[in-house]
Amino acid sequence: MKLLEERIRKDGTVKAGNVLKVDSFLNHQMDIDLFNEMGKEWAHLFADCPITKILTVEASGIGIACVVAQHFHVPVVFAKKTQSLNIDGEVYSTKIQSFTHKKVYDVIVSKKFITPEDHILIIDDFLANGCALEGLLEIVGEAGATVEGIGIAVEKGFQKGGDLIRSKGIRLESLAIVESMDAETGEIVFR
Amino acid sequence: MKLLEERIRKDGTVKAGNVLKVDSFLNHQMDIDLFNEMGKEWAHLFADCPITKILTVEASGIGIACVVAQHFHVPVVFAKKTQSLNIDGEVYSTKIQSFTHKKVYDVIVSKKFITPEDHILIIDDFLANGCALEGLLEIVGEAGATVEGIGIAVEKGFQKGGDLIRSKGIRLESLAIVESMDAETGEIVFR
Repeated sequence: MKLLEERIRKDGTVKAGNVLKVDSFLNHQMDIDLFNEMGKEWAHLFADCPITKILTVEASGIGIACVVAQHFHVPVVFAKKTQSLNIDGEVYSTKIQSFTHKKVYDVIVSKKFITPEDHILIIDDFLANGCALEGLLEIVGEAGATVEGIGIAVEKGFQKGGDLIRSKGIRLESLAIVESMDAETGEIVFR
Repeated sequence: MKLLEERIRKDGTVKAGNVLKVDSFLNHQMDIDLFNEMGKEWAHLFADCPITKILTVEASGIGIACVVAQHFHVPVVFAKKTQSLNIDGEVYSTKIQSFTHKKVYDVIVSKKFITPEDHILIIDDFLANGCALEGLLEIVGEAGATVEGIGIAVEKGFQKGGDLIRSKGIRLESLAIVESMDAETGEIVFR
């Protein structure tokens, strides 16, 4: 998606350790008009899928998922990190290792909100090693629901997550795939 | 706001320990159409305020804030819990005690995203003891920005947060104020 690639080039910053900072428009400060354009793009790409619900994981996926959901006319469910006292009854749970935070989180989704009848579109801001997506796929699998596809804003094409997901035969639509980036020159090459 | 009160009555559940569960439409599964109606209401209530940015805190405030922001045509910034390796440079930080999770969080906002020129609308899903809001107000104060007001989806009127915020002279627009609720009968009385 040209608009997103241009924005990453303009406002993204490459940091040492394979970190691409896009916090001025994607995951700390959030440009809602951009999210709507992303929603239009995914609605077009997944037009043939009978999506009933969008699933994401806290925190930085939530804003994108909620704005994007308007283009699919479905509710959003977000997987919660760590057990909340407010989640009662049964939950699906899994562990996710965060690339950014170098930590392992427990994430949970109430069983009430994903059922075998659901056709799920998973939305997230970043795809690096794919750990978050594997956790979400596990939850959807446990629920017996169908994964229609995955929409990612920024895929780091030089990390293994994209290949891992595509090798499972899951439809993955990343709106920007970074092929390589250089912390010294700041150069970003898209696939 | 009648629509929200009716929804709370219909789909909310009162639990022991002053817990009101609204996780089927507000803060785990999210009804985006409802969020848009809330956005229209706040846009009407704060129509005279020159708002430049919406501030919320992760995680459950983010979805509401992003959908609501479309009615103000401004970006959203969310305060992040705990230090992230991806936040560089200087940040505003404070500590917030969560009523729900019985924990103290460090929350941070990058100094780049709130400036003295900003007129801030704070949005969150719940107001109980007001700890989260006090943290966000502290951050806006540190930044030298102006707080135009606070929009809360559900205020627990029987806890001290609402009075605390109003006593500071800050404009607080809660779309539903629960005056009392009873875990045994399930009855919810709105102010």
